[in-house]
Amino acid sequence: MLQAPPAEPGMREEEVDTPALLLDLDAFEHNLDTMAAILAPTGAKLRAHAKTHKSPIIALQQMKRGAIGQCVQKVAEAEALAWGGVPDILVSNEVIAPRKLARLAALSGLAKVAVCADGEHGIAAIESAAEAAGLRMTVLVEIDCGGGRCGVAPGPEAVALAERIAGSRHLIFGGLQSYHGSAQHYRTPAQRQQAIGAAADGTRRTVEQLRQRGLDCAIVGGAGTGTFRNELASGVWNEIQAGSYAFMDADYGRNDDPPPFRQSLFVLAQVMSAPRPGLAVVDAGHKAVAIDSGPPLVHGFPGVTYAGASDEHGTLKAEDPSALPRLGQSVRLVPGHCDPTVDRHDWYVGVRKGRVECLWPVAARGGMA
Amino acid sequence: MLQAPPAEPGMREEEVDTPALLLDLDAFEHNLDTMAAILAPTGAKLRAHAKTHKSPIIALQQMKRGAIGQCVQKVAEAEALAWGGVPDILVSNEVIAPRKLARLAALSGLAKVAVCADGEHGIAAIESAAEAAGLRMTVLVEIDCGGGRCGVAPGPEAVALAERIAGSRHLIFGGLQSYHGSAQHYRTPAQRQQAIGAAADGTRRTVEQLRQRGLDCAIVGGAGTGTFRNELASGVWNEIQAGSYAFMDADYGRNDDPPPFRQSLFVLAQVMSAPRPGLAVVDAGHKAVAIDSGPPLVHGFPGVTYAGASDEHGTLKAEDPSALPRLGQSVRLVPGHCDPTVDRHDWYVGVRKGRVECLWPVAARGGMA
Repeated sequence: MLQAPPAEPGMREEEVDTPALLLDLDAFEHNLDTMAAILAPTGAKLRAHAKTHKSPIIALQQMKRGAIGQCVQKVAEAEALAWGGVPDILVSNEVIAPRKLARLAALSGLAKVAVCADGEHGIAAIESAAEAAGLRMTVLVEIDCGGGRCGVAPGPEAVALAERIAGSRHLIFGGLQSYHGSAQHYRTPAQRQQAIGAAADGTRRTVEQLRQRGLDCAIVGGAGTGTFRNELASGVWNEIQAGSYAFMDADYGRNDDPPPFRQSLFVLAQVMSAPRPGLAVVDAGHKAVAIDSGPPLVHGFPGVTYAGASDEHGTLKAEDPSALPRLGQSVRLVPGHCDPTVDRHDWYVGVRKGRVECLWPVAARGGMA
Repeated sequence: MLQAPPAEPGMREEEVDTPALLLDLDAFEHNLDTMAAILAPTGAKLRAHAKTHKSPIIALQQMKRGAIGQCVQKVAEAEALAWGGVPDILVSNEVIAPRKLARLAALSGLAKVAVCADGEHGIAAIESAAEAAGLRMTVLVEIDCGGGRCGVAPGPEAVALAERIAGSRHLIFGGLQSYHGSAQHYRTPAQRQQAIGAAADGTRRTVEQLRQRGLDCAIVGGAGTGTFRNELASGVWNEIQAGSYAFMDADYGRNDDPPPFRQSLFVLAQVMSAPRPGLAVVDAGHKAVAIDSGPPLVHGFPGVTYAGASDEHGTLKAEDPSALPRLGQSVRLVPGHCDPTVDRHDWYVGVRKGRVECLWPVAARGGMA
């Protein structure tokens, strides 16, 4: 079930069992400090997204640097955080299943929790769960600010849902969830600016219409690592939900004017077969490193590409065969996409200056429900 | 860490927490029986691949129907099987890391184990581990029979490695590993026949050259769900390593003349947002269902496609909006690729005739090292 950790404190990095999820602690802490420094002079706070890291240990490090809480996408993630001491958790997603809502309500003794709705069905389900648990649950209205996935249209539809929530004696209206997911990976600053500009217009208008009805938004939440500087500039959002900034990945690296963070997350792999010149096979396939946003990069080996992923193997190729890592050598892969890569692993192996410093469980890994 | 199971025995399928890994037990048992019936009149035995199911419970059900053992790709998978009572395990892959080989040797008291090598580096590493553990380890030579990944060329190179193994007092030569991975998904029977025909030629030639040197192959292993009928017809292989046949997936379903098995594996998801006509959003994204071989199919909803996967969401679309499942409804998704989908989950939810019958842990999930 839980896999044994692939390393022990004090080991040299090249001794770590592969594949392993490696966290470069210097780069990681730099990223946390950098985000704190960017947000400090603004009116917005960080509510970091734990769908990326799935770890109360990392959540508490973010909160020590000023984050006011965490976002999650799943009740199982909320449980892992609350059990691990995180005091303020927003499920930035719809939850409509009664069993899940009962579990969420059961966390209220440990943490302040809130959840989103984008329709009457969801609001009624949360209301029933709150009534059954004998407490008031906080609900945000999710608006579709451009991503085209969940969320009602900004404006009157959102206002009607907010009034429905505020009018329930089992619910508290908590504000707006307004996240533009696809804009995070638009390649140019102009594309991102345009998308978030439109998102800001709809969000600002909805906040204003709510205010006219006497409904204040305690939370106006959204933004991710790719666009948060745009949301900050708009002045509309008061909570920033970036998650990937702590780790980064190859896909964010492909954005023009990429965000000012360092790559701290790697999958350590070993060349375990090199049967022909020009080919090195590593023991990290797509069960160990997510390829939904493209293959990983091979860190520190210029000219070497990760040319093919199968379940448990990756094939490395190079025009110049002498550029390839040699049989037995361990290599750091930069994941194409950090969130699902973390979700494949049970342990973070924290390294600093070539030595294993700590092992942290990926406590909410899977988080299936 | 280990997630709580998403169901309880006796529940109706629509009450299961989503996303969940669903196993239709009637179809699953049909598949196991069908494979046993196909192999019974042949000279070959099934050594089913546990990289697919990662469960000693399923392994033992395969063995009750005649399978002589299991294959794995990872030492962690071998451990989960040996600890769960599986008596005969082949690591159908290279392992060269000393810590992993020591763990593999440590299983020898529980199970018969064997491992592959495709070069002197690997053989020497296994020899050292065997000597340190005070036992003889069985090693197969992996040949590249066309897949272009691990394995030495058939013929003299393979024979030299076999002689090196047989000449070591710490090792036993166990035979040949000859698996053509990419051929499993060639779309036409003619393509598959051609690829396996060539693989059979090289394998047969190598077996013969070994015999001339006095080296018998106890195991000539290979084949997968897409091609095993070709390997059987050749008469060259004596062990068939199919894994997916127990579950099937959308990608195997796209093969012409697909293998004679039923879809038994599903990811159960719930429509948790339906904010606009023509859109239904389910709570299974690519963290819950693998998309490396294409998106899942939506079972039982003709005209409905799984149009987009993000981390925790899937968007369902249909030309006729009335064809979409409704908000709150649970739907069975047919994974594009079964192996990595299983690896995302902690529990199989076994269902029969609409009721949950059993819960089985995915014991070797992750199997990171």
